Amino acid sequence: MMTKIGILGYGNLGRGVEKAVNANPDQELVAVFTRRDPKSLSINTPSAKVLGIDELDNMKDDIDVLVICGGSATDLPVQTPKYASEYNVVDSFDTHANIPVHFEKVDKSAKEGGKVAVISAGWDPGMFSLARCYSHAILESGVDYTFWGKGVSQGHSDAIRRIEGVADARQYTVPVPAALEAVRSGANPTLSTREKHTRECFVVAKEGADKAKIEQEIKTMPNYFADYDTMVTFISQEELDRDHKGLPHGGSVIYSGSTDSDTNHVIEFSLKLDSNPEFTGAVLSACARAAHRMQSEGMTGAKTMLDIPPAYLSHQSGAELRAHLL
Amino acid sequence: MMTKIGILGYGNLGRGVEKAVNANPDQELVAVFTRRDPKSLSINTPSAKVLGIDELDNMKDDIDVLVICGGSATDLPVQTPKYASEYNVVDSFDTHANIPVHFEKVDKSAKEGGKVAVISAGWDPGMFSLARCYSHAILESGVDYTFWGKGVSQGHSDAIRRIEGVADARQYTVPVPAALEAVRSGANPTLSTREKHTRECFVVAKEGADKAKIEQEIKTMPNYFADYDTMVTFISQEELDRDHKGLPHGGSVIYSGSTDSDTNHVIEFSLKLDSNPEFTGAVLSACARAAHRMQSEGMTGAKTMLDIPPAYLSHQSGAELRAHLL
Repeated sequence: MMTKIGILGYGNLGRGVEKAVNANPDQELVAVFTRRDPKSLSINTPSAKVLGIDELDNMKDDIDVLVICGGSATDLPVQTPKYASEYNVVDSFDTHANIPVHFEKVDKSAKEGGKVAVISAGWDPGMFSLARCYSHAILESGVDYTFWGKGVSQGHSDAIRRIEGVADARQYTVPVPAALEAVRSGANPTLSTREKHTRECFVVAKEGADKAKIEQEIKTMPNYFADYDTMVTFISQEELDRDHKGLPHGGSVIYSGSTDSDTNHVIEFSLKLDSNPEFTGAVLSACARAAHRMQSEGMTGAKTMLDIPPAYLSHQSGAELRAHLL
Repeated sequence: MMTKIGILGYGNLGRGVEKAVNANPDQELVAVFTRRDPKSLSINTPSAKVLGIDELDNMKDDIDVLVICGGSATDLPVQTPKYASEYNVVDSFDTHANIPVHFEKVDKSAKEGGKVAVISAGWDPGMFSLARCYSHAILESGVDYTFWGKGVSQGHSDAIRRIEGVADARQYTVPVPAALEAVRSGANPTLSTREKHTRECFVVAKEGADKAKIEQEIKTMPNYFADYDTMVTFISQEELDRDHKGLPHGGSVIYSGSTDSDTNHVIEFSLKLDSNPEFTGAVLSACARAAHRMQSEGMTGAKTMLDIPPAYLSHQSGAELRAHLL
């Protein structure tokens, strides 16, 4: 079944979805929708249109699934409920604490419109949620641990850039090797925030800025850095552009559970991603396939990856999957 | 929803399912069915009955899901299609090449009876199949590798025990560290059978047996050992009983795929299991929960884990899963 895709928002994630859709044999990118002036936007798919966001009122018959690529802070809480009544949609809403509220709003809208909305897709939430769900479902007694990195946290990089005297910055979240080892051993350790991750910051200071003061401000910043062992390294803009351009990320979900007092089992799911937005975009494109199929079979409402039969994410038939991948 | 469970066959796997069912808050073991004399069988659940296999004709109203714990060679190809028309069933059929035929037979029977049959559940096929399916669905361009071990292969242990002069044996399948590293690096190497795994054999020779001849017979055995680097160590029965009693196993599915010429992503799913039959039993008990729920919602026919929405494996509600695990 071919799926005609629209993308709303053309930042890093929107471009990641575009790349994935163009790699998938059963998907076609129809249009990218933007709040900017469409004429100002150049996309990588010659056959697709660039349209203003208002054109979404007129494209319902041309698009099977709209992949909404905005941010979780202000875009998605408005856009996903708004469009879920008119389009099958997929989003990557990732503010974990607000997922239940987002789900309810989107569910209501999607059911009113007879559409399917897959929310909170990606890798965390998303693939990591799957790892947690499968593990807990299989082994009743157990503990899950999630480690992130080594990878770039854009939120933390932005927080550093807001400090006076900082020209640019890149922040890496790094899991503590000893913590990983302890969890993998099945010891089920109790780990503080500081014991799980360290934060490595590469900072470009403006000319004449007080580097000691910048370093102090980073290391004591509440929520972002104060609870971590933080390393600050000042480098030049050239070095930052040369060595820290990419957006790699990844991490591990490790579950340790037992079936008897002396019988332990460790389940680990890990990702090592050269590009966070391109991998996330690929997950969203697979979820778009599932959304289309679910709605065409009569399902409606909000779904997460926990609700999607794995085979629905694939363009291979059930028989092909059983013959080649099972 | 409570699920009343029956277990057919009480070997290592049947006992593993029993342990998992008793650990699950929403499941109750009603009866174990056996081809042996029921009086000869002592089980670990005082509240459950032990019944002869013929009693399955009379227990349809007392059991929601029958977990069939026979072997894939001769038991399951007969038992699963036979009982799938009368019970929701779960099996662990693991002869990969014959899964399509098994699926068709079971599907026909389950549909006739209006039941759900989950086949080929466990970890490979099962959890490892899920890892392969998700990876291929997300990254169109990529290669999957499966490594097994370090763990006990019962089939290979049995093959050694059939050699003249052998009193007992335990065979471990061991992944080659260099191969694992190459795959994890994203290099997508081409690996021969010999390059992926080695085989370690611990053998108890009968008194006066020709050890050199036994070792030679093991190392040249077609299909089982000839294509591998095989290590043979002779030990005493006491040493074997003391150091090699358990049935640990595990392994990794590693997928390496790209979204661009220089942008690679590595997805890894690993298991480290102290007891292969207890973990497999736990997977089967989760699939029994899903089978019951799917059938109660009106679905029928054969399913694999690729067809089961992950949330259906859990006893937690959708809202609980979204709040705590997503």
